[in-house]
Amino acid sequence: MRVNAYAAPAAGRPLALTTIERRDVGPNDVLIEIQYAGICHSDIHTVNGDWGPQPFPVVPGHEIVGLVTEVGSAVTRHHVGDRVGVGCMVNSCGECTNCRNGDEQYCLNGMVPTYAGTDRDGTTTQGGYSTHVVVDADYVLSVPESLDAAAAAPLLCAGITTYAPLRRWGAGPGKKVAVVGLGGLGHMAVKIAHALGADVTVLSQSLKKQEDGLRLGADHYHATSDPDTFKQLAGRFDLIVNTVSASIDLNAYLGLLAVDGTLVNVGAPAEPLSLHVMSLIGARRSFAGSMIGGIALTQEMLDFCAEHNIGAEVEVISADKVNEAYERVLASDVRYRFVIDTTTLA
Amino acid sequence: MRVNAYAAPAAGRPLALTTIERRDVGPNDVLIEIQYAGICHSDIHTVNGDWGPQPFPVVPGHEIVGLVTEVGSAVTRHHVGDRVGVGCMVNSCGECTNCRNGDEQYCLNGMVPTYAGTDRDGTTTQGGYSTHVVVDADYVLSVPESLDAAAAAPLLCAGITTYAPLRRWGAGPGKKVAVVGLGGLGHMAVKIAHALGADVTVLSQSLKKQEDGLRLGADHYHATSDPDTFKQLAGRFDLIVNTVSASIDLNAYLGLLAVDGTLVNVGAPAEPLSLHVMSLIGARRSFAGSMIGGIALTQEMLDFCAEHNIGAEVEVISADKVNEAYERVLASDVRYRFVIDTTTLA
Repeated sequence: MRVNAYAAPAAGRPLALTTIERRDVGPNDVLIEIQYAGICHSDIHTVNGDWGPQPFPVVPGHEIVGLVTEVGSAVTRHHVGDRVGVGCMVNSCGECTNCRNGDEQYCLNGMVPTYAGTDRDGTTTQGGYSTHVVVDADYVLSVPESLDAAAAAPLLCAGITTYAPLRRWGAGPGKKVAVVGLGGLGHMAVKIAHALGADVTVLSQSLKKQEDGLRLGADHYHATSDPDTFKQLAGRFDLIVNTVSASIDLNAYLGLLAVDGTLVNVGAPAEPLSLHVMSLIGARRSFAGSMIGGIALTQEMLDFCAEHNIGAEVEVISADKVNEAYERVLASDVRYRFVIDTTTLA
Repeated sequence: MRVNAYAAPAAGRPLALTTIERRDVGPNDVLIEIQYAGICHSDIHTVNGDWGPQPFPVVPGHEIVGLVTEVGSAVTRHHVGDRVGVGCMVNSCGECTNCRNGDEQYCLNGMVPTYAGTDRDGTTTQGGYSTHVVVDADYVLSVPESLDAAAAAPLLCAGITTYAPLRRWGAGPGKKVAVVGLGGLGHMAVKIAHALGADVTVLSQSLKKQEDGLRLGADHYHATSDPDTFKQLAGRFDLIVNTVSASIDLNAYLGLLAVDGTLVNVGAPAEPLSLHVMSLIGARRSFAGSMIGGIALTQEMLDFCAEHNIGAEVEVISADKVNEAYERVLASDVRYRFVIDTTTLA
């Protein structure tokens, strides 16, 4: 099946309309007619070659929402007409300890990313900037009907990426949670942490987005460019979710944690960070990292978001605006996620 | 009350016999006739000036076991003749969140270290290389009679320093725990982790102490000088307790952790460490730090050690051998803790 897609032909080159092949629907596969695909910063890193060589042409997109149009003979979990989603992975071994524990993203044999990856049949995966995708049913999520489809798309990456550490480190009533950075990931973290019942603080470079932050659910908002912030909030937080991938002054942020507090990075700066161990030892603190989440947890997150009426704040664009959107993402000029209306590719 | 003590007169100078003043026994104080005082690496760092200027003369020693010879009028918890212990702190504010949570070591107003600290009455604290000490009853531990007094002394620092992270991060049956370094702290970590029911691995520079390690309770023993160790044990451990204060290749050790695993430092290298965040994100790992433990937890640790018949492996020396012992500690020539028989000071 040949389908339309927007692909990067080579590293750093603009994306352009093309056609790609989707595999036949196997017994455990689901064919999805894509409605929306979010634009994640990872898409840009990948096609720019920031993360090493890629199997070009690359069709990015791992925040996918669409409708099931065909299911394989063995599929019982999804039905034609269901609204479904696909996130950052489309396969894993299913047999290793991590897969068996529901941590497919940490598959010891290597999970298969939704694009620019090598699937278990040896083919190269292509993402959601496309009209259709065929995905193993076990990696397809149900997207509750109460969610707006466009606003739900970013939940598949930005949502689970922030939901996972918030749950793992116990964000909830009585807990003070800070979110560093109010971008695509950060604004989801604020909404979810607020819905989980935590007291939420945004730590942003400036107060520029303060009004937004408070509207999205933050209880407090501080500028990290103001050194007083670090004095005023010293030892305050149980959990800090750092959504900023640029290098930060780790020791300054660790100083904001209470005893037993954890600072979790959900992105990785290219350069190693410098860490004074005393910043941890002085209050039994932890510095942790978290990457997306397993399939079961992703479904839990979608159901949670439906229950709490949480979607991303999105700017829906037609596919031919992708390159322009990339420029604006790099300039932090989006509140808070671009989502491609992939029906414009048909 | 003037008492005999061994003190460092100035930074880097040998310790020598002297006399110091101990305060009168106040209503909440306990006078302890010291029997044994362990030699901790911190003692050497402090008197060598590695940790900055100190209020010389300094009497080190924060692994103290002795007998109660007098109690203040308000003391109900300890009685004359009781065998008791004093660890790394002798006071704290008692009122801040951390003190109220039993984490006196993280007192927000500053805990008072057992020596070279300023007590709440403004006097300089002096440690356990002495015949007697007067300590607030709330910071005096009960040392179960079933424990050998000399072997119990190191529990007050080396014991609690390792017990606290092992408990905090759930060492127990079904958990794989590694201990980095088999010295004063490491050998306690091995004994305690084994008694907690964990599967214990020692990671030591060489296999020199392998026989000891296995005798002390380790199930496995690997040399970190062998690069194969890091390949063979990749992703294996739930918890790694790093007792080595020297800089380590953090990313290599993080690679030994399973999903959700934690590497805890109980010592802090002087220089900051370089950390690739991807080492954490790739398996939702944590890097943490822990410093001794609160008073209630220290008592729990002593009772646990009594129940499991755990003491330190000690070499008991007379007070006049302290400087020689320091040399040997610096040369790692002790298995595994020197303990001063402080009755030799009388």
